[in-house]
Amino acid sequence: MKRIITIAVALLMAGTAFAQQALWGSASTVSPEINEDGTVTFRYHAPKAVKVTVSGDFLPTQRLTFQMNGQEMTYDAPGVAELKEGQHGIWEYTTDFKVASGMYTYTFNVDGNNVIDNNNMWVNRDIASLTSAFIVPGGRADLFTIQDVPHGTVAKVWYESAAAGFDRRMSVYTPAGYEQNKKQKYPVLYVLHGIGGDEDAWLDQGRAAQILDNLIAQGKAKPMIVVFTNGNISQEAAPCQNSTGYIHPTTALPQTMEGTFETSFPEVVKFIDSNYRTIAKKQSRAICGLSMGGFHTLYISLNYPDMFGYSGMFSAAIGVSDPSVSPIYQDFDTKLATYFSKKPDLLWIGCGNTDFLFEANKDFVKKLNENGYPHEYLENEGGHIWKNWRIYLTEFVPKLF
Amino acid sequence: MKRIITIAVALLMAGTAFAQQALWGSASTVSPEINEDGTVTFRYHAPKAVKVTVSGDFLPTQRLTFQMNGQEMTYDAPGVAELKEGQHGIWEYTTDFKVASGMYTYTFNVDGNNVIDNNNMWVNRDIASLTSAFIVPGGRADLFTIQDVPHGTVAKVWYESAAAGFDRRMSVYTPAGYEQNKKQKYPVLYVLHGIGGDEDAWLDQGRAAQILDNLIAQGKAKPMIVVFTNGNISQEAAPCQNSTGYIHPTTALPQTMEGTFETSFPEVVKFIDSNYRTIAKKQSRAICGLSMGGFHTLYISLNYPDMFGYSGMFSAAIGVSDPSVSPIYQDFDTKLATYFSKKPDLLWIGCGNTDFLFEANKDFVKKLNENGYPHEYLENEGGHIWKNWRIYLTEFVPKLF
Repeated sequence: MKRIITIAVALLMAGTAFAQQALWGSASTVSPEINEDGTVTFRYHAPKAVKVTVSGDFLPTQRLTFQMNGQEMTYDAPGVAELKEGQHGIWEYTTDFKVASGMYTYTFNVDGNNVIDNNNMWVNRDIASLTSAFIVPGGRADLFTIQDVPHGTVAKVWYESAAAGFDRRMSVYTPAGYEQNKKQKYPVLYVLHGIGGDEDAWLDQGRAAQILDNLIAQGKAKPMIVVFTNGNISQEAAPCQNSTGYIHPTTALPQTMEGTFETSFPEVVKFIDSNYRTIAKKQSRAICGLSMGGFHTLYISLNYPDMFGYSGMFSAAIGVSDPSVSPIYQDFDTKLATYFSKKPDLLWIGCGNTDFLFEANKDFVKKLNENGYPHEYLENEGGHIWKNWRIYLTEFVPKLF
Repeated sequence: MKRIITIAVALLMAGTAFAQQALWGSASTVSPEINEDGTVTFRYHAPKAVKVTVSGDFLPTQRLTFQMNGQEMTYDAPGVAELKEGQHGIWEYTTDFKVASGMYTYTFNVDGNNVIDNNNMWVNRDIASLTSAFIVPGGRADLFTIQDVPHGTVAKVWYESAAAGFDRRMSVYTPAGYEQNKKQKYPVLYVLHGIGGDEDAWLDQGRAAQILDNLIAQGKAKPMIVVFTNGNISQEAAPCQNSTGYIHPTTALPQTMEGTFETSFPEVVKFIDSNYRTIAKKQSRAICGLSMGGFHTLYISLNYPDMFGYSGMFSAAIGVSDPSVSPIYQDFDTKLATYFSKKPDLLWIGCGNTDFLFEANKDFVKKLNENGYPHEYLENEGGHIWKNWRIYLTEFVPKLF
């Protein structure tokens, strides 16, 4: 009887992709493998390939330079390493260094073509690119992993946007216990993505739900609702998640930094305050964002100085606004003075010292210092990368509320 | 000024995967492309490849045979077509037939190695296999697409499972208006996956949220809460979503069909009734599932005959239980008689005529007929495939409540 059941179970599975694997002969290769000595091995099955490389942010970066407005700017591109072909057409590369604790993304390149690791089920979509991901645990990266702690709920929620003229999608994190403690009200953190992101970015690439779960479980952060909007007001939702089909991001750029997102932000706050058990006051509201989201954070904070007690600018895209496109970008110094006259609880700024926005951020910090405007500033290593944005979130969240 | 902003925006994007694309020279190939004549074109960039094929359920299937328990069984594997190399190393294949309206998944095979389509951002994970997906609209497939209608919320929720001894993850769909109509109570449908699935399967491969959104918007289904559990009680959650890291599904099989999931189902119902505004009675509860989930549906319905008014068995894995492993599988005929004596609102059965479980389902229907037990039975074409399970959900949901 046992044997028959085993066969039947195998057949049930045959109806799924397992059959495809079995029929097509995919090797069950382990990749990536985090070795006991701290190195990491990558494997890829490509029996007829001539050259296979792996590229990712676990490798030392290659510094590239650009010219921008007559000035030389630098950009740190992911490093590249070659795999060697072993038995059964399986190519392999093991790092010659211990990979530090962290979350990393990578792709293979097989004879000129980028592919993800088909043995790794963790696929990250960053706009129109797919990468494979892994975490080396230990240290701060333990905040990025799913631990055996109470987990909040992550919901994909649609709201009616009067500004856009259509329904839009956002992600909402409610902390563990939210559904059970039906009388409790919570503070709210709004987290904004960069120009290449959407309402999924901070949860997928940013590990925001894990960071919140873990910081709350450790008693280092207060239980809070966290809202992830889509910062491109011309879009309903992320690619593959909207009624207009897949939109290539370049076609969607026009409405990212022309004021509409910022001026329509109160409708987002109103929706959240109406539909969730929030503490609907300035001292219980925070906003932060990376790159374009840091730019949005700055202008939303300045134009609505009674809305947010806490603001966090992560590698913020300071200095890219064109004041002529919207009143929201005008009268900057006056708005800054008004903002500080209302005594915000915290303005927090983080930027890496090789970020192409580093000088712009330093200039802004200098202005704050010259005017005696209170703020906190974290300067660390690295460029315009998720590694830093995850760090900044783990630094900012414990300071809230 | 405009020019400077354009450069700045380009640089902001350079911090993301765009730079990788630009640096690595990925072609911005369109694939798949649904042509005006109803054919579909697939493209893959592989300048040094010798042979590239595409395999997917849009192609005519290949019938394979198995031996099971001395009996010949059939299985329909996805078809395969060859791509031809064109300019710039881009391989291409266009179907020589109109692809019927539907949702399809596919992979490429490049010189013996399966890869997804790196120009298609819609990646489906089915346990340990990745496929690319697309929808040809029109007809029933319009139910699978995101339409411009009010959208429900899809949440990933963790609950404390006494049966498992740890917290477990489920997906919960609440219909559009749930958060606004705070006094309204809703009926609940529980939807179970197959042996190769998890709490994400019905939402990703099954398009359940889109089906519910669209049927409700058309007035063909009542607004309802829909719950997607993980049917493997030994797992916390889907791969990459649990604290134990990635679990290969074969190691997780022991506790799928030995009674624990079924006997612990009341704790799921209790959690939902405690945390959502449900109509907590039999006539407002439904359960359905595919394959192993149809098996679970049958035994949960029979062992808890006061719990569900509506039960749906989709290509159900009838006849694979071993009564010796759990009392839940014993006294089948007595439990069946009791179940029908309590006059359920609906027992619905759907099975394809090439499914390897077709005979087992027909035998069960015959037994129901012989005993005069009321039920509905849909027999259609095809095998043990998602195409049928999506159809069954669209047939079952309008009959509820």
